[in-house]
Amino acid sequence: MSNTPLAGGAEFDRIRAIATALGDRARELGNDTALVKLGDSTVALSADVSVEGVHFRREWLSFEEIGWRAAAAALSDLAAAAAEPVGVLAALTLPEREPEHSFVALMDGVGAAAAAVGGKVLGGDLSRGGAIQLAITVIGTATRPVRRAGASPGDGVWVTGELGGARAALTAFLAGREPDPAARARFARPEPRIAAGRWLAEQGARAMLDVSDGLAGDAGHLAAASNVALVLELERVPCHPAVHAEAARAAEPDAVFAAKGGEDYELLVVLPPEYAGGATFPLHRIGEVRAGAGLQLELAGEPVVLSGYEHFA
Amino acid sequence: MSNTPLAGGAEFDRIRAIATALGDRARELGNDTALVKLGDSTVALSADVSVEGVHFRREWLSFEEIGWRAAAAALSDLAAAAAEPVGVLAALTLPEREPEHSFVALMDGVGAAAAAVGGKVLGGDLSRGGAIQLAITVIGTATRPVRRAGASPGDGVWVTGELGGARAALTAFLAGREPDPAARARFARPEPRIAAGRWLAEQGARAMLDVSDGLAGDAGHLAAASNVALVLELERVPCHPAVHAEAARAAEPDAVFAAKGGEDYELLVVLPPEYAGGATFPLHRIGEVRAGAGLQLELAGEPVVLSGYEHFA
Repeated sequence: MSNTPLAGGAEFDRIRAIATALGDRARELGNDTALVKLGDSTVALSADVSVEGVHFRREWLSFEEIGWRAAAAALSDLAAAAAEPVGVLAALTLPEREPEHSFVALMDGVGAAAAAVGGKVLGGDLSRGGAIQLAITVIGTATRPVRRAGASPGDGVWVTGELGGARAALTAFLAGREPDPAARARFARPEPRIAAGRWLAEQGARAMLDVSDGLAGDAGHLAAASNVALVLELERVPCHPAVHAEAARAAEPDAVFAAKGGEDYELLVVLPPEYAGGATFPLHRIGEVRAGAGLQLELAGEPVVLSGYEHFA
Repeated sequence: MSNTPLAGGAEFDRIRAIATALGDRARELGNDTALVKLGDSTVALSADVSVEGVHFRREWLSFEEIGWRAAAAALSDLAAAAAEPVGVLAALTLPEREPEHSFVALMDGVGAAAAAVGGKVLGGDLSRGGAIQLAITVIGTATRPVRRAGASPGDGVWVTGELGGARAALTAFLAGREPDPAARARFARPEPRIAAGRWLAEQGARAMLDVSDGLAGDAGHLAAASNVALVLELERVPCHPAVHAEAARAAEPDAVFAAKGGEDYELLVVLPPEYAGGATFPLHRIGEVRAGAGLQLELAGEPVVLSGYEHFA
């Protein structure tokens, strides 16, 4: 079995153990998105599970937001593969005490997130269970798919949008404070960067993934998959406006707070040196690819070591 | 939105409410399998969730069996659509107290079920959660897809294999008895009828579904989707050898016990009158399609009313 190398972490140890046990009963695991050639199409598939108490708490979000957020997290994997969404399948469980209408409210959020990027709800399954859980599978097509592997020394490392907004909201939620409204929106209704992903692929993107587990963790996976070193200058990381206040409370530099934050669902992309600009969305160069291995983070010229983001539970 | 008519039941009321709320943000819901045209391929997709305490109890099954059973249930939807499996995506949750190895054991069962029908594990997601849950999404391709709609008056109604084996095991489990080994195998390691489904499509199958919720419930959905009446003679229903003893304990005729049983994952298929036989697998004619609406069950010439199967929880 050909398996995409992953950086360290408990979740990735699990994936490695499963890949070993399955052998050739599995296709390449370790990418967020599977690419399968069917006839004349390349189909992109990804699955993502959202669990009450692990990925969200019900007090923080409406049911529509829980549905949107779960679907957007899965659709974001299609964005990182430069795929065009076709649709989503949603397997939902809700505790017995939840009214029937809660199923509809969750699916309403799932459907809204799919429709926002041109996809449809294709199917799903509903069951009673112990907690709110949403397992979302997304399907899309890719004419020029981008993977985690493909970065070469000399390429530039870029990131879309702003980071740290979701973490700013999460930090406030966990402290029992009302989050900044813009930060709350980043947490509750993240936007999969579908159009950006496809445009970046057209510009010759070499490697791409979505920043779901924090820049520190995700950039390490891209480096491992591409078998290169990534050198990122943290002061170049674009920070969400809500980061400054929460970073100050946490006694962290803004860029460190933003780089450790997960679930922003922006794209981390490696572009060739000849990339000529022209993006109509925020896109910032934050580092470069060098020969070697691993992730090197620098702040004001000094090396920094950060952990990835492993959700709050 | 075009929505496939469904017979009654709480689960189907849920699907109807969701279809109404989603409007044109959903494709046709109400079939177990979505069919999507991508380039020159027709892609079949289905999602199925298995929840500890609702669909199984951990005392009854090994982790490998739990994984196999969840994947087989989803793959069975591909069988009913006459699709050829490509692969599965598995979103798993396990309680914190479960050792890491349990993820591998569940995925081992998922991978074995996929490999048994020529599919691969394409991806998935892993999380901690409150209970064992497996959300399995399957993808396949169909050159001659079969749906629930399409039965015409005069067609014959047939069923593959034998029914009631899974219910015989479940009845024993619930009573704290050790099930008959062959019945236990039907519950723990059901076999998706992929080859049978494709062969039946080649014979001109008009409509098909898998018997997951019991013949009584599922045949009603086929009748509703096809806008016809189905008349089934219960004494013709092929019963698993373990049915007789359990039916006697339950004081039910064997055929009634078998027809009420769910999760056998055999195929209920409507074949045209000119069907000439030649199946290399067990296939029994159990009734016919007539003009009208709804399901009519008869035992020794007398009408019988049976409920569908709504799992044990």
